[in-house]
Amino acid sequence: MSKQGVTPQSENFSDWYNEIVYRADLAARSPVRGCLIIKPYGYEIWEAIHNSLDRRFKETGHQNAYFPLFIPESYLKREAEHVEGFSPELAVVTVAGGKELEEPLVVRPTSETVIGEAFSEWIQSYRDLPLLINQWANVVRWELRTRPFLRTSEFLWQEGHTAHATHEEAEAETLQMLDVYADFAINEAAIPVIKGLKSNIERFAGALRTYTIEGMMRDTRALQSGTSHNLGQNFAKAFDIKYLDEQNEQQYCWTTSWGMSTRMIGAIIMTHGDDQGLRLPPKVAPYQVVAIPIFRKEEEEAPVMEKLMNIVKDLRAAGIRVHVDDRNQSPGFKFNDWEMRGVPVRLEIGPKDVEKGNAVLVRRDVAGRDAKQFVSQDGIVKTVQDLLDDVQASLLADATAFRDANIHDVSSYDEFRQVIDGGGWARGWWAGSDDNERQIKEDTGATLRCIPLEQPGGTGTCFYSDEVAQSVALFAKAY
Amino acid sequence: MSKQGVTPQSENFSDWYNEIVYRADLAARSPVRGCLIIKPYGYEIWEAIHNSLDRRFKETGHQNAYFPLFIPESYLKREAEHVEGFSPELAVVTVAGGKELEEPLVVRPTSETVIGEAFSEWIQSYRDLPLLINQWANVVRWELRTRPFLRTSEFLWQEGHTAHATHEEAEAETLQMLDVYADFAINEAAIPVIKGLKSNIERFAGALRTYTIEGMMRDTRALQSGTSHNLGQNFAKAFDIKYLDEQNEQQYCWTTSWGMSTRMIGAIIMTHGDDQGLRLPPKVAPYQVVAIPIFRKEEEEAPVMEKLMNIVKDLRAAGIRVHVDDRNQSPGFKFNDWEMRGVPVRLEIGPKDVEKGNAVLVRRDVAGRDAKQFVSQDGIVKTVQDLLDDVQASLLADATAFRDANIHDVSSYDEFRQVIDGGGWARGWWAGSDDNERQIKEDTGATLRCIPLEQPGGTGTCFYSDEVAQSVALFAKAY
Repeated sequence: MSKQGVTPQSENFSDWYNEIVYRADLAARSPVRGCLIIKPYGYEIWEAIHNSLDRRFKETGHQNAYFPLFIPESYLKREAEHVEGFSPELAVVTVAGGKELEEPLVVRPTSETVIGEAFSEWIQSYRDLPLLINQWANVVRWELRTRPFLRTSEFLWQEGHTAHATHEEAEAETLQMLDVYADFAINEAAIPVIKGLKSNIERFAGALRTYTIEGMMRDTRALQSGTSHNLGQNFAKAFDIKYLDEQNEQQYCWTTSWGMSTRMIGAIIMTHGDDQGLRLPPKVAPYQVVAIPIFRKEEEEAPVMEKLMNIVKDLRAAGIRVHVDDRNQSPGFKFNDWEMRGVPVRLEIGPKDVEKGNAVLVRRDVAGRDAKQFVSQDGIVKTVQDLLDDVQASLLADATAFRDANIHDVSSYDEFRQVIDGGGWARGWWAGSDDNERQIKEDTGATLRCIPLEQPGGTGTCFYSDEVAQSVALFAKAY
Repeated sequence: MSKQGVTPQSENFSDWYNEIVYRADLAARSPVRGCLIIKPYGYEIWEAIHNSLDRRFKETGHQNAYFPLFIPESYLKREAEHVEGFSPELAVVTVAGGKELEEPLVVRPTSETVIGEAFSEWIQSYRDLPLLINQWANVVRWELRTRPFLRTSEFLWQEGHTAHATHEEAEAETLQMLDVYADFAINEAAIPVIKGLKSNIERFAGALRTYTIEGMMRDTRALQSGTSHNLGQNFAKAFDIKYLDEQNEQQYCWTTSWGMSTRMIGAIIMTHGDDQGLRLPPKVAPYQVVAIPIFRKEEEEAPVMEKLMNIVKDLRAAGIRVHVDDRNQSPGFKFNDWEMRGVPVRLEIGPKDVEKGNAVLVRRDVAGRDAKQFVSQDGIVKTVQDLLDDVQASLLADATAFRDANIHDVSSYDEFRQVIDGGGWARGWWAGSDDNERQIKEDTGATLRCIPLEQPGGTGTCFYSDEVAQSVALFAKAY
């Protein structure tokens, strides 16, 4: 047990994760199987994700809209792969307003179908293209095994849906949104994700191509953290999404969809957390600084609080999110509590600091003595801003170093199995078949996470089939 | 028909409303009975409502959280009035993951029950109070008759849920949130709502007291636009929400809930719209200004666009939301289109304006020649800002004058019936019973909208029962 009474990561990562989710007050169990209550501290992280992504979506020309929660069962069946992929997980409304429904309504697991139907009505000519829509919504997938944030029966997400005149434009959109996700993950969530293409087996039900960003969690497992799909003309044909081109000819559109969900909260927990609790990147942290007054005697309270609140006011004026913990609890209790909740920087002010014009800053990302520094109150806003930038950068650097130390190049299946058994990710030339991929999963538990967009170039020999391979692939055990 | 081809309000207000919703591109019909697709232009109004309210909720100490979409059927039954009120409208999931569920899951019509259960676990002692939570969510009420935005099977809303130590604190919270709603409605949506208390018959299922804000639509019907409920200890007792007080005694909490929904979009349409289309208050308008270049010859395009974009840049830098309509359509087509969509101010720049340093501004709230003014490009940002302020104020003034002209004091039931038959709201001293209220509804179609918080003082004689009355009540036909 750590000093927080949490199972250490090294002992049982899964227990550590479950404990942290509830101990850091991110979520609570709900009475509905597999559904989570997202508590304010968790929801504020989601709001940060929401706001960061929404800004990027709007900057790239997308508009938000809202489509019905319910989808007629018959819609889902129009795209064959799609219904096959989602059927086992559907929640179905059969009774409404006291009556049995003639056609059952599926609670949306994703909205390609209902949005496809709408697009077919909205799009008439090439002038209506591209149509760039995003939806913030809840979706339901009735999973057998659920885990907080990572896999819940209901979750929150955004789903982008776009229609284009050509395959090239749809592909460009798909890749643009993958870049948006990667930019968010790397530069806000400090998760050094790897961009790549999914294999046939792993792609979205109904897509032509699925791109993914894959993050490495601190137990070295992979977490798919966002996906962007080029749907080709599959949904356009299933839902009759057509446009009149400049030559007055009817053409099918090319569509895309892309999504990121509350699963990202799980990614942040598992990329940065340690045995003392969460470590939140400043850019997504609900509180970037927690300010704690330190005093023993009653007469010390007023001057300490006055100085503290002056500094807090200045920090807030500079746009820094500060929480003042003035609870009637010991400083030690508060330190542990905010360490657990992963607040990037702790600010302490005591009577001596008031006297000397100093303050204590403690960064959460570093352990032990190195975390603490005594600073002057002069210019403290700049000091704190710089420190927050440094914490943000150092979390990303740590995660990148960890990732790179755990990815290993392999050139034979023996090497591959050694790497996977050792908990690493295996990267190797790949020309295997779908069946080869299934066999590898059965043998080792590892799945093809992606064909990274960044490739060494040239060709090589497939580590599994020995055939000539055009690209390297990344395999790992995954969530 | 108006020049827009829309049914005039005077002819058939209901047809006018339905046509405007779709013609102004706020929404689209969906394949699911009673559900609406909110299109980007409508959703942006919802985003403005969301952002304005969310800011106010946070300023008053509330935090957002998220609770499950599904509620076990048994939960709903724990509060007797509550289940009676909502049972006829429930949508029920009976099958999930391919299996019949042991206990059906209700799609939330509102979340008092599931949040009540959570509160009972989260609250231990007086230190945990007040607990101030808000949720942004979709809810489902399977209504027999639906109308876009006003009454849809699924709608978007926020629902606040709070717990307090005393009745007084709960009542203060209930009234505070009513004030928040009224402040938003009046100062952002330019709807001069009347705050008041609902009668026993009209109050929320399970509440002690329901407060409402009532708006008068342009057909003089009332629209309940937001409600705030003091739930007393009803839900606390049903869900065992208790706290240990300072004397170490177990006490039941006092809870509140309050909500505003996408219905507010309907309120904005019906308070301000005219036969030419929407008239949007600048504070909630997706675009506050639409900028339209005017030119006949090709060589005029470049200088006109250059000047236009320079002005647009300055306006945007000042935080004004500007849309540039550079579609390949005639100016007349564009004027009509943006008139329909209710953009508060139109900015036109033509070759002569470029020459003379002028611009044309046309305000949407005023008809005919008075709408148009020729202004200098110098200081145009300030000119536009002032004009937007003026449009905002004048829409509120118009709606207030209309409201006041249509509320009539009555002192007998004969007078009452005349007022109601004439399409007015009737205000009179009221000491009637629940049965009296039902009889009035049966006789006239009017319902008791509220006992206004603003009262004349003293006592009077009830217009219906002739008994001594402590307060006046407001009756009207309502949506």
